[in-house]
Amino acid sequence: MNRQDVKRLLGRVARAAPHAASWNLETWGLRRDPQGELMRGGVLLSRVMEAFGSPVYVLDDARLEQNAARFLATPRGAKTACEPYFSYKTTPVPGVLRRLHDQGVGAEVVSPWELWLALSLGVPPERIIYDAPAKSAESLAMAMERGIGVINLNGREELAQAVATARATHRRPRIGLRVVVPGGRAGQFGERIETGAALAAFREALAMPELEVVGLHSHFNGEFATVEQLEAYVSALLAFADQLRTELGLALEVMDFGGNLACRTASRLIPRERRMAVTLGREPTPRPMESVMTIDAYVAQLVTQVERHFAGKRVRQPRIFIEPGRAMTSDTMMLLCRVLAVRGTDAMGLTWAVLDAGISVAEPVPNEFHQLFAVKPRAGREQVYRLTGPSCMIADQLYPAWRLPPLLEGDALAIMDAGAYFVPLATCFSFPRPAIVSVKNGQMELIRRPETFEDLVSRDDVKRPALRRLAARI
Amino acid sequence: MNRQDVKRLLGRVARAAPHAASWNLETWGLRRDPQGELMRGGVLLSRVMEAFGSPVYVLDDARLEQNAARFLATPRGAKTACEPYFSYKTTPVPGVLRRLHDQGVGAEVVSPWELWLALSLGVPPERIIYDAPAKSAESLAMAMERGIGVINLNGREELAQAVATARATHRRPRIGLRVVVPGGRAGQFGERIETGAALAAFREALAMPELEVVGLHSHFNGEFATVEQLEAYVSALLAFADQLRTELGLALEVMDFGGNLACRTASRLIPRERRMAVTLGREPTPRPMESVMTIDAYVAQLVTQVERHFAGKRVRQPRIFIEPGRAMTSDTMMLLCRVLAVRGTDAMGLTWAVLDAGISVAEPVPNEFHQLFAVKPRAGREQVYRLTGPSCMIADQLYPAWRLPPLLEGDALAIMDAGAYFVPLATCFSFPRPAIVSVKNGQMELIRRPETFEDLVSRDDVKRPALRRLAARI
Repeated sequence: MNRQDVKRLLGRVARAAPHAASWNLETWGLRRDPQGELMRGGVLLSRVMEAFGSPVYVLDDARLEQNAARFLATPRGAKTACEPYFSYKTTPVPGVLRRLHDQGVGAEVVSPWELWLALSLGVPPERIIYDAPAKSAESLAMAMERGIGVINLNGREELAQAVATARATHRRPRIGLRVVVPGGRAGQFGERIETGAALAAFREALAMPELEVVGLHSHFNGEFATVEQLEAYVSALLAFADQLRTELGLALEVMDFGGNLACRTASRLIPRERRMAVTLGREPTPRPMESVMTIDAYVAQLVTQVERHFAGKRVRQPRIFIEPGRAMTSDTMMLLCRVLAVRGTDAMGLTWAVLDAGISVAEPVPNEFHQLFAVKPRAGREQVYRLTGPSCMIADQLYPAWRLPPLLEGDALAIMDAGAYFVPLATCFSFPRPAIVSVKNGQMELIRRPETFEDLVSRDDVKRPALRRLAARI
Repeated sequence: MNRQDVKRLLGRVARAAPHAASWNLETWGLRRDPQGELMRGGVLLSRVMEAFGSPVYVLDDARLEQNAARFLATPRGAKTACEPYFSYKTTPVPGVLRRLHDQGVGAEVVSPWELWLALSLGVPPERIIYDAPAKSAESLAMAMERGIGVINLNGREELAQAVATARATHRRPRIGLRVVVPGGRAGQFGERIETGAALAAFREALAMPELEVVGLHSHFNGEFATVEQLEAYVSALLAFADQLRTELGLALEVMDFGGNLACRTASRLIPRERRMAVTLGREPTPRPMESVMTIDAYVAQLVTQVERHFAGKRVRQPRIFIEPGRAMTSDTMMLLCRVLAVRGTDAMGLTWAVLDAGISVAEPVPNEFHQLFAVKPRAGREQVYRLTGPSCMIADQLYPAWRLPPLLEGDALAIMDAGAYFVPLATCFSFPRPAIVSVKNGQMELIRRPETFEDLVSRDDVKRPALRRLAARI
């Protein structure tokens, strides 16, 4: 038995395992019409594809409203609510942002462009937070001139620039400082609490009359899944807030806890799961949904913990800022695509099919679990498919192994939880980028038109003299 | 001694190793002016950045011409030359493509958009090759109607569609079939020679009067570095060409050997080198330049081997098609960027700096060796820097360890070999995409203007009623 035979055998055993947890359609508020076709927001998905082509991103308006409402809600028994600032980088699409702002969600921007976008959309400057590992001189001046809510400086190295810009713009900006909780991975971000660097940075900032130090800013490293992770993180920041008060006399107006709440239905694949899918054709198992706290549980834990901490103290409780991204939008969008070609079954027993969507429009899929549904499942025995993208790159493989009803050319598929990091990480690699359509109460609305061939060369001078030498060579 | 201490110590030892091979500036045709500033194409790089901002891609016109000329040349002692078709996906920029076409290089396109682009640029249809793992009905019809040079079908599964389209368009298209050499990794591409699938597909295609079977198409899996790799690959295809002739009576008009010649000065980092750079701060060592054959050597081997094979045979020698991408353009471009902030030195002894260019415009850099130069090196002791991008993502790290003269905010750096897969894999993640400027004989020419803030929302409806509820909440 050679290596190929062993893999083939192991693959057969692996695929004989019970079907990976396939969550109920209700999880996403999906349903099927009497003919078995998938609907979202009261719209048949085939209608969306007929109207706006394939691939296409579909936004569920009602679900986005629900998520936003949950982040904005005052938990039962609490007096305070969080103030959410949506992480623009996750899905910087005006049609999505406007819906969130309409409900009262602010803007967390991390670049000059995102700052410009928030202001262009009419977000009141005081409802914008500007974070970034480094900020260009122009964008910092604009943030100060317009009176941005909080400018979170990345660390000591940004203080001198902030002071100089404050002087030049004749403003006293409201600033926060980014810190790293003990044991956290810092990377290029923030000042460490455990080394004393964070305290030193605050001391230095407080000595600068040009700056109004209002906030403490932090991000959890990785994703929050459990209440315990959140509790430990919040405790560390509350302890540091106490230290700021006792040692530097600073009563924070704002505690900004950042983002990083996980999406319940999409998760990073552990390397072993990914390897098994690639080498043995075994469908990956998702992280159990119950192991990830809901938005409600997240907000309740955060608010309650902060309220409890400040309850006995003779000090104003800081405002609770959060910067949700993934947890706000991930499950509100899906990517619809079609089968371009079915290649047949290989020696391992996998049927290869080429989709019209690949890593250029679904960058996270090879490394994350994203539920996949047939839009209108055909009758017949399920098979394990290996689904690749349409580009000329061997790495353009979305699903190394996924069990589906029989597929034919032209059949439509729905990739779930496409609302975070799909759109901003899309490239124009060989293919233009898709439209974004929202659905609600049986209505469709185009919120971003598909990219045209001309769009892809709109920054170039295409109309130039004919190619004489090439023609001459023929 | 804890784990951190061990890493620190090992890091110090690793960094005490001799400096990684720093190739001569001449390698890229670069030089420094008397003040020590880097020049390319006779232009001071600071002038390019002043005129077109930062980051910015710079194309060396003369080098592109040289590379193209090498691919087009008839090797010494040979009778034939290759016919190169440039792999559009590598760098689909009209200003680059036009230069190549002007010299006589054809177009290899892999998507409907690239096919449209080649035709829009005025490339004669017979100088276009259309490859793809699956082709949309519209693009296949267009390719046939316009009389594309060769349509390379991915495998048997594309035959029926090709026949149907040929009938509908009343054309007899010139087709090739993609095969996989024995032992090669197929992925989603081609039919295997060793299983007999490739021969069967040719037999089937030859039985279809609607198709004119002219070519054999293949791609090497991975990168060609040595003459020996190339020789073995070409031998396998020549043997299959013989089989086609003896068993099916097919005398090929075209043998299309695909692309995949390596760039001599950029290479994929082996995982160990990358790990050492990340965990110990050791500068990676490049693959020795001499271990990669030159364009001249590649062309000479290919042409000579094909000529020799057909020399004694009573059969017309096929035309030799190649589809260079990386080897044509990689070393003709560089990415200029600036230091946004210097964060200071960490416990491991690495100095962290944030650049205005990150993975959004330099996707290949974390996994490949790309030489980095200071545009105008400052006097002072060299340090090992950890260079990150400007986005709010911990993974946005370009160079985990690179030795450079002292850097200050605003200093410019040049990332070499940015001519392949940088531009098409760029995203708009938090930042607009840069301009592309060509330099030659002391002149600059803007070949792609920088993306504006407005460009990033040009497909959206930004002008909508003000955000009342958000304003009301304040």
